[in-house]
Amino acid sequence: MLDWLDEAAKRRAKAGLTRRLRPRPADARDLDLAGNDYLGLTRHPEVTAAAAEAARRWGAGATGSRLVTGTTEAHALLEAELAAFCGFEAALVFSSGYAANLAALTALAPAGTLLVSDAGNHASLIDGCRLARAATTVVPHAAPEAVADALAGHEGPAWGVTDGVFSVDGDAAPLAAWAEACRAHGAALLVDDAHGLGVVGPGGRGAVAGAGLAGAPDVVATVTLSKALGSQGGAVLGPARVIRQLVETARTMIFDTGLAPPAVAAALAALRLLRAEPAMAARALAATRTLHDRLTAAGLTARAPDAAVLSVRAPSPETAVAWAEDCRERGLRVGCFRPPSVPDGVSRLRLTARADLTPTQLDHAVTTVTATRP
Amino acid sequence: MLDWLDEAAKRRAKAGLTRRLRPRPADARDLDLAGNDYLGLTRHPEVTAAAAEAARRWGAGATGSRLVTGTTEAHALLEAELAAFCGFEAALVFSSGYAANLAALTALAPAGTLLVSDAGNHASLIDGCRLARAATTVVPHAAPEAVADALAGHEGPAWGVTDGVFSVDGDAAPLAAWAEACRAHGAALLVDDAHGLGVVGPGGRGAVAGAGLAGAPDVVATVTLSKALGSQGGAVLGPARVIRQLVETARTMIFDTGLAPPAVAAALAALRLLRAEPAMAARALAATRTLHDRLTAAGLTARAPDAAVLSVRAPSPETAVAWAEDCRERGLRVGCFRPPSVPDGVSRLRLTARADLTPTQLDHAVTTVTATRP
Ligand SMILES: Cc1ncc(COP(=O)(O)O)c(C=O)c1O
Ligand SMILES: Cc1ncc(COP(=O)(O)O)c(C=O)c1O
Repeated sequence: MLDWLDEAAKRRAKAGLTRRLRPRPADARDLDLAGNDYLGLTRHPEVTAAAAEAARRWGAGATGSRLVTGTTEAHALLEAELAAFCGFEAALVFSSGYAANLAALTALAPAGTLLVSDAGNHASLIDGCRLARAATTVVPHAAPEAVADALAGHEGPAWGVTDGVFSVDGDAAPLAAWAEACRAHGAALLVDDAHGLGVVGPGGRGAVAGAGLAGAPDVVATVTLSKALGSQGGAVLGPARVIRQLVETARTMIFDTGLAPPAVAAALAALRLLRAEPAMAARALAATRTLHDRLTAAGLTARAPDAAVLSVRAPSPETAVAWAEDCRERGLRVGCFRPPSVPDGVSRLRLTARADLTPTQLDHAVTTVTATRP
Repeated sequence: MLDWLDEAAKRRAKAGLTRRLRPRPADARDLDLAGNDYLGLTRHPEVTAAAAEAARRWGAGATGSRLVTGTTEAHALLEAELAAFCGFEAALVFSSGYAANLAALTALAPAGTLLVSDAGNHASLIDGCRLARAATTVVPHAAPEAVADALAGHEGPAWGVTDGVFSVDGDAAPLAAWAEACRAHGAALLVDDAHGLGVVGPGGRGAVAGAGLAGAPDVVATVTLSKALGSQGGAVLGPARVIRQLVETARTMIFDTGLAPPAVAAALAALRLLRAEPAMAARALAATRTLHDRLTAAGLTARAPDAAVLSVRAPSPETAVAWAEDCRERGLRVGCFRPPSVPDGVSRLRLTARADLTPTQLDHAVTTVTATRP
């Protein structure tokens, strides 16, 4: 009775959309420009030692919901330091950035709310909008004037909803204009800063801080602990009353096991490293710009990056896959985005840069991507 | 403009539904009968050592989506051993059990599908039904005849959807009858075995295995790694073509960072401990039955447990909170479930038992719960 699954698989194969998991070994020698470990901290000895120590001290798991047994003192410490670092009153940690976005949208947008959502938003924001009891209006990508239009005339709670840095192309949202449009119409602003934290803003404090919006009474940010902080988990940052609403009503907090202590401790260790060495963020950005400049100089098409993500156009899904495969055979791992995981139907290679890339590694990346171009 | 949040908080406070996080210290001396660490493995030296070693070997985080960089050989190994242990063809690991349920429902129930969902199902199954493009019919709790009625006459794909063991009361679903009703109407069956794995079924293989349904071509199970396996994460288990569909289309896999390697390794170590010592599962169950027999003998109202969860009735949300608080003051941590996190509006203490509880600890639990009764 599940035969329809085979037909669906055949349809995907025909469209060039077959995907498979490729387990990587621990000692992979490739140069990895596919992951989101923007600061190169996931294997930093202080980060891994913190994870190991937390496993011994607290156990491997949180054992229950945050409201029952799943909040350790380590969670509270991470929340306090994360809020302080990013410039918000309070923070709440979730088991993933995905869960943090679902929580923010469902708990902060009751029936009668209008959500005005950027067309390029991350899947987790989109799913959050779908799950919320609110109405959603999707506006064109990076178009604050459309935000104002969509909000005009709405009565009751409303939110503008946008990624701070978009995950596919690495472009920064026009956050100041979003905030202005929202404020002019009595709406609050929710920004997913997953790709901003650790890379953009003062000392890597994120796109929201960069736009001067951190800590504002009408601004909420979500972040993930799984990219620049090299761990797993996510968080919502905002005014204390927002966090209270989440603690008391968010389903992906109440009904989900708390983040595992090793992940909590690893994220905190990474945050402290970033705080101690703010230049790391600028290095990640500079490496991405170098990649961009050299690849476009070689004739490839890529958007000038606002963060540590560089997206290089490919002619089709099939050539994108073959291109990424050729890179891999030469020891370079790059991401390959195809429909339906890109909003605009354009396939691309997705390269990420890290704060710790050496000139030799950058050379290797540029040579490989250009030599294998379709 | 977020003033409505304060009013919502006041309404909750008035209804006795204020909740707050209480960070626990690493060296808490309380007896914990509130968490879901059913086998007492979250602090087992082999489990915590596996987490620590994985942090050093792989890093603190998976660095990307399972489809990009987030699948390590450790993920593949866990998936193979978990599928084999539970008796399924294949498995796919997610960052949480919550995400696993969202994935199963959204990826396996396209438009035109009918989902027939038990009224007592876990929030993550409910959210999955909401997110799916399918139609959902909610049937009364544990009523397979209602399942048959709901399925009658539907054309196109259909699923019965139920918890294997319900999280609030610990009652087992009538899975054989669910399977029969589904099969009679050409529907497949999705079972959330979060509270079954490690506790019920042969050697702790779960409620699905216990009902003889593991590995059936029309049965899919989800499990969590955060309860009996003492870690974090979740998995979907099923026929290979189901797992393929998830790999290629499930949004909470494609757009979520892979489970952190320390959590992967901890869950695998716990699984191996359970496999090596199947009697652990029976011990967890026996401890729960002892608690039940002694508490009901003392005049309290509690359902005879089918798994390691024991739910004891409280007269009201307020007395439930006070009761749990009194227990805590005497060194016993118990859960306290109130609306809206219980489906039937009945407040209760929720006690969980562990395979490693000593007779002295069981005495302490019984004495404390009875002495503090409202
Ligand atoms: C913009 C954005 N938001 C949220 C997430 C989800 O975060 P996580 O992977 O920690 O669940 C991601 C990526 O995974 C992302 O790119
Ligand atoms: C029945 C059930 N399913 C799913 C989940 C979610 O699993 P996780 O906490 O690993 O996200 C839980 C509890 O947390 C549960 O009780």
